Amino acid sequence: MFAHLGADVIKVESPRGELLRYREDPEVESREFMMLNSSKRSLPIDLKTSDGRQIFLDLIDRADVLIENFSLGVMERLGLGADELMKRNPRLIYARGTGYGSEGVLSGLSAMDLTVQAIAGVISTTGFPDGKPVKTGPAFVDFMAGIHLFAAAVSALYQRERDGHGQLVQAAMYDTIVPTLASPMAAYESGKNAPERVGNRHSGLSVAPYNVYTAKDGYLAIFCVSNRHWRRLLTCMAREDLLDDPRFGTPHARAQNMDAVDELVETFTSTRTRAEIAEILREQDVPSAPVQTVGEVSNDEHLIQNGMIQTVRHRVLGEVTVPGCAIRLDGAPPVATAAPALGADTGDVLSQLLGYDAQRIQELVQAGITVSTTRSEMAVAADEA
Amino acid sequence: MFAHLGADVIKVESPRGELLRYREDPEVESREFMMLNSSKRSLPIDLKTSDGRQIFLDLIDRADVLIENFSLGVMERLGLGADELMKRNPRLIYARGTGYGSEGVLSGLSAMDLTVQAIAGVISTTGFPDGKPVKTGPAFVDFMAGIHLFAAAVSALYQRERDGHGQLVQAAMYDTIVPTLASPMAAYESGKNAPERVGNRHSGLSVAPYNVYTAKDGYLAIFCVSNRHWRRLLTCMAREDLLDDPRFGTPHARAQNMDAVDELVETFTSTRTRAEIAEILREQDVPSAPVQTVGEVSNDEHLIQNGMIQTVRHRVLGEVTVPGCAIRLDGAPPVATAAPALGADTGDVLSQLLGYDAQRIQELVQAGITVSTTRSEMAVAADEA
Repeated sequence: MFAHLGADVIKVESPRGELLRYREDPEVESREFMMLNSSKRSLPIDLKTSDGRQIFLDLIDRADVLIENFSLGVMERLGLGADELMKRNPRLIYARGTGYGSEGVLSGLSAMDLTVQAIAGVISTTGFPDGKPVKTGPAFVDFMAGIHLFAAAVSALYQRERDGHGQLVQAAMYDTIVPTLASPMAAYESGKNAPERVGNRHSGLSVAPYNVYTAKDGYLAIFCVSNRHWRRLLTCMAREDLLDDPRFGTPHARAQNMDAVDELVETFTSTRTRAEIAEILREQDVPSAPVQTVGEVSNDEHLIQNGMIQTVRHRVLGEVTVPGCAIRLDGAPPVATAAPALGADTGDVLSQLLGYDAQRIQELVQAGITVSTTRSEMAVAADEA
Repeated sequence: MFAHLGADVIKVESPRGELLRYREDPEVESREFMMLNSSKRSLPIDLKTSDGRQIFLDLIDRADVLIENFSLGVMERLGLGADELMKRNPRLIYARGTGYGSEGVLSGLSAMDLTVQAIAGVISTTGFPDGKPVKTGPAFVDFMAGIHLFAAAVSALYQRERDGHGQLVQAAMYDTIVPTLASPMAAYESGKNAPERVGNRHSGLSVAPYNVYTAKDGYLAIFCVSNRHWRRLLTCMAREDLLDDPRFGTPHARAQNMDAVDELVETFTSTRTRAEIAEILREQDVPSAPVQTVGEVSNDEHLIQNGMIQTVRHRVLGEVTVPGCAIRLDGAPPVATAAPALGADTGDVLSQLLGYDAQRIQELVQAGITVSTTRSEMAVAADEA
């Protein structure tokens, strides 16, 4: 997010590359790596050497924000703990991402998107009432944690304008999910006997139509918030004969007759394509959307138009799809540049930003403390969206 | 988020109250409303009257940030469009939340958490390969959109420190989900023939163990990132006899023998409780977590300890659970105060902030343009967590 919004972001990773970079092939960046590292610069550092630590400390002296998500205690063991770094640079924002925070009984436990989905109630509330609980396809805990940590760091930058001081800011994966449970937690707290999982229905089983329906060529979601939406939907379905049917006249009545409502709607949807249905429902502004496959999202005209799906070029993979920036400030959406090859910016950062001379850089490279490639080896030209 | 972090947040809603406030009972706030409106102040305004608009404009003159998520065009029709407001107060940050942004073919369409989960590929990637696609239990699109909009507004506040100007910032629900698809989109782009849905397995089917397993008293997730984790898990399961088994020796081999891996693990888990398994696995630091129910999350000792689960008091509901703030700046976690009764702060805001006299306030209340109650009617004392 910082890189998209124009900050100079320097990615520090091991001289062997971080895990995701070469997950598939030891010499070719994975597509996931490309998707998550647009518009950054690369400076690999072996932080276990004293020369490596010195490079890092020199960077810290000039940095506004450090973002790290090592296991708790790793930075301290490297001699790079928050206290130490903030003593060196009192204006530094030290942003720490963790699974479970730095205090409390779970603090320090290993955490992954899957395991936090489990503990945070995401898995138990997802799936059908008669089926096994299931995780969410997208790794949404990872991304909730990331955007919270970004927001925390920017908040601290703003605070620094007032008091001149940096600070330690934190976001824990588990914590960021708790507010998203508002609806099921409200149902639980009020003692309602709602099932733990409701498939595609409303979590309190109190709204209908609210479901995913079968179309001729896939699925689509329909959600009638108000009686007005319902009456319009009846018009779309050419079922005005039901306008005065007491089984469906109020939200409460429709919730009581949910199976009948869903059957009615599916009778309409199952003989039409998603596009045909979308056209009919949009005319009446009934909230609805097709269940798109990932391939359809990847090629969505709307997302390409608005810069959320962009293309960068990679020396081996060719054109690679990368996400744009969902935060829109004034002006045109930022254009992503391809994730850097390992060490693509080592020379520039060490010489221009830190003032190292050519001989010193060569020594560091020869000692394996860093790696230096050139941008041209990666062919990083960004395509216009 | 602003209120949690100490800003004076004034919630402007209709004199009848917003939809969520009285969803269950026309006189008692819903628990969901309480969960989403901690630490704010309430000033109801009928924006369709000229006197109401004037109150709003007087607020804008003193505001740093306006956050709104009306349908596109509503603010303009009220005479309160971004251009107009920012002309009045050039330092204003106008933060607009939408479903699909203000440009592009989908712009202006109705959007709800359910329908955006559908179009953004969340539903198609969630569920079992042989089952119907299913939405995520938590309304995660709503919360992704909210935290992005918060981050956008804070970014603009920081920018304003440099150039002195406010700006329009935006976050669209659909856009915020696109980056979370990195793994399935990478699989799609690389032409892999992975199934659209993989249940609780790794989306590329390239990691094992990675699944949700059955315990005696529920489910739990286990995820072995490395060979080290796998060897430790074998120790936990007292299956050191398999340490040299070629079927399981490498990540690739385990992925090839995924069914056998899962069967082995479930043989171990199915005869033990989640707590027994957790104790065994934590000793060896194998990433794992119980699949907690919402009730278990709501009572989680760790979350109560760290202030993510707090309690406020409501005049009718009694003790209500509310989420804390997942962004942690220096110092103790902020303590949530109960969501305000409708109009609880009308008198204070109009007199102290805007300088209206008592007679004017009385006239506005009598004309139904606003509503005024007192804080004591709500009994808003916050409990210590």
